[in-house]
Amino acid sequence: MAANIQFSKAVSNATRFVRIRKDFQLFRGGVLPEIDIAYECWGQLSPRRDNAVLIFTGLSPSAHAASSLEDATPGWWEYMVGPGKALDTGKFFVICVNSLGSCFGSTGPASVNPATGQPYRLAFPDLTVEDIASAGRQVYRSLGISRLHTVLGPSMGGMSALVLAVMFPEEVTRLVSISAAAQSSPFGIAIRSLQREIIRNDPKWNNGDYRFDDPPTDGIRMGRKLGLITYRSAAEYAQRFGRKRKFGGHADRAPFGPEFEIEHYLEHNAEKVLGHFDTNCYLYLSRAIDWFDLSAHGGSYEDALGRIKTVDNLVIGVRTDFLFPISQQQEIADALRQHGKSVRFQVLESIQGHDSFLIDQDRFAPIIRDFMSGN
Amino acid sequence: MAANIQFSKAVSNATRFVRIRKDFQLFRGGVLPEIDIAYECWGQLSPRRDNAVLIFTGLSPSAHAASSLEDATPGWWEYMVGPGKALDTGKFFVICVNSLGSCFGSTGPASVNPATGQPYRLAFPDLTVEDIASAGRQVYRSLGISRLHTVLGPSMGGMSALVLAVMFPEEVTRLVSISAAAQSSPFGIAIRSLQREIIRNDPKWNNGDYRFDDPPTDGIRMGRKLGLITYRSAAEYAQRFGRKRKFGGHADRAPFGPEFEIEHYLEHNAEKVLGHFDTNCYLYLSRAIDWFDLSAHGGSYEDALGRIKTVDNLVIGVRTDFLFPISQQQEIADALRQHGKSVRFQVLESIQGHDSFLIDQDRFAPIIRDFMSGN
Repeated sequence: MAANIQFSKAVSNATRFVRIRKDFQLFRGGVLPEIDIAYECWGQLSPRRDNAVLIFTGLSPSAHAASSLEDATPGWWEYMVGPGKALDTGKFFVICVNSLGSCFGSTGPASVNPATGQPYRLAFPDLTVEDIASAGRQVYRSLGISRLHTVLGPSMGGMSALVLAVMFPEEVTRLVSISAAAQSSPFGIAIRSLQREIIRNDPKWNNGDYRFDDPPTDGIRMGRKLGLITYRSAAEYAQRFGRKRKFGGHADRAPFGPEFEIEHYLEHNAEKVLGHFDTNCYLYLSRAIDWFDLSAHGGSYEDALGRIKTVDNLVIGVRTDFLFPISQQQEIADALRQHGKSVRFQVLESIQGHDSFLIDQDRFAPIIRDFMSGN
Repeated sequence: MAANIQFSKAVSNATRFVRIRKDFQLFRGGVLPEIDIAYECWGQLSPRRDNAVLIFTGLSPSAHAASSLEDATPGWWEYMVGPGKALDTGKFFVICVNSLGSCFGSTGPASVNPATGQPYRLAFPDLTVEDIASAGRQVYRSLGISRLHTVLGPSMGGMSALVLAVMFPEEVTRLVSISAAAQSSPFGIAIRSLQREIIRNDPKWNNGDYRFDDPPTDGIRMGRKLGLITYRSAAEYAQRFGRKRKFGGHADRAPFGPEFEIEHYLEHNAEKVLGHFDTNCYLYLSRAIDWFDLSAHGGSYEDALGRIKTVDNLVIGVRTDFLFPISQQQEIADALRQHGKSVRFQVLESIQGHDSFLIDQDRFAPIIRDFMSGN
């Protein structure tokens, strides 16, 4: 059975699968009768199985964090993962999972529901970050790993890493949280809720029953633009584009069409995502982020973080990130310290906002390298 | 001739008009064969005509800044304007103009084009902040005022005040710029461009030819939500709403409908604006803000600000404003100082973001009062 047929391009010879053919319980009460979890891995698992590093991704990437012999195309964190790199695959066995609910090999709303033979679409049960973490756990356990050297992730991936360490404290030795949050803020909820509304408002969305070959592109394009605006920073846009204008191009003649370079940039980048992500999967993952609140695992998010049993923790935030601001990173670091945990808290001056971890390798790589080498 | 029939509610017994029945030249080359400029005023013009204070508004308000005998309903800056208030109408003759291009009595895209007998819609010529300033100038000149005691305004109104003082330096004695900018940033352009795209994408917009009794409400609602998100701050939303949920209400049963209080707040406030502003007027004014760049009046915005001949200047910014950030207020203050001008630069810790001037009277009123009393 080929799940997610229309996004199979994201699955390569490097993609591996854990296939669970029994009920998978979800955090909010739903059940999936079977799941696939797609992942990739790099490096060698040590005989003692104590060098495994698990990466959870942000909302949109696949498990292809880095290139390999099986798939030479650059991954979304190419600078970070590889021989001699910060996540040194000469030393660590690095795993990256495609999130449950996504559409790059793992089971999600675009996957076929075995009960009906049709894609789940909105019949997919409520999805949470807890479920993404639990599904990731199935991967390392299937490989005979009972305890991770390190779990890490940026953005939604940081949330997944945090909640894995909270729910399964005996299985996580070190934790790296990048531009994440202990609970989603109402500002972030407002942005994501509006992105979802823009998509849902597109008549082609059709209450989730869109044609896979004719998805709600207007809604996706505008929702993506709002994403791009909030994933980067005013400082970066000022530096890259200023008030430069760019004439020519397809949309100019429309009244109020793009005129400034920043508008063309948004248009170009929004067009690029069309056809590369399933819309219902996006809606489910976006809402999972809104729902994320570690206080579900304790009286407060601080209590929940007190359950973590890691020996060392690294919390990274970026000053120009206004979607997951420094104050939220500080909350995570403070709560861990309050419980006597060892915490390295790094505030970076990268100008790329929330997306800095994808781009600013000169700041991110040395910090991760340092933490991973135990310095 | 009754212009802007559908928004006549915004015109009351307090509304006055300057009616110019000859060509009005616009900054980008267009011509309006006639214009009306709606305004309100409070207090008495002194015999020497030297106590006139002109207020320019942000994008959406009418000229009704404060209540009066003729119109007792509270105005948009009620706390600021009145007897004994910061803009003391016992001392000053205060004028507030409805911007050219708006729909509350002043000529704009919803007004009837005398050449056709039909509303201008997209046949309205290119509109700039310079035109808003020039139209405001017609008001005080029609009242026999050759020099203003003070010109002030928040947001787009601050831009209007700045460019009036640059274009007509002999006519402005004091200047107050609140949460404005010397040139629109690419970040702000990105937000406004997306708001306009969301509106234009609504099929009911119909390239500007919508029915006035059936406007593009979906686009307006979602564009307004993006406005609300960017006019306030993450800190305010965290304080007011946190992660509180609110069930019940019309939209709950829709898949992915509102759940958190912040979502209901956005929904409620977006619904409130429907029917209260003309869509084409909004598009013209929004683009006028994007186009705003004082460097059109000099080699750079700094040079342009050097043309100002005021005796004192007040520049106010709000720390939580990420749409017109403190850095942009600092730019205005620095440029004025660089030219040897007297500048008071106030950074406020209000949590209401860009909209703070509307709400945070405890911080704003004393600063304006102090400046106006010459202390």
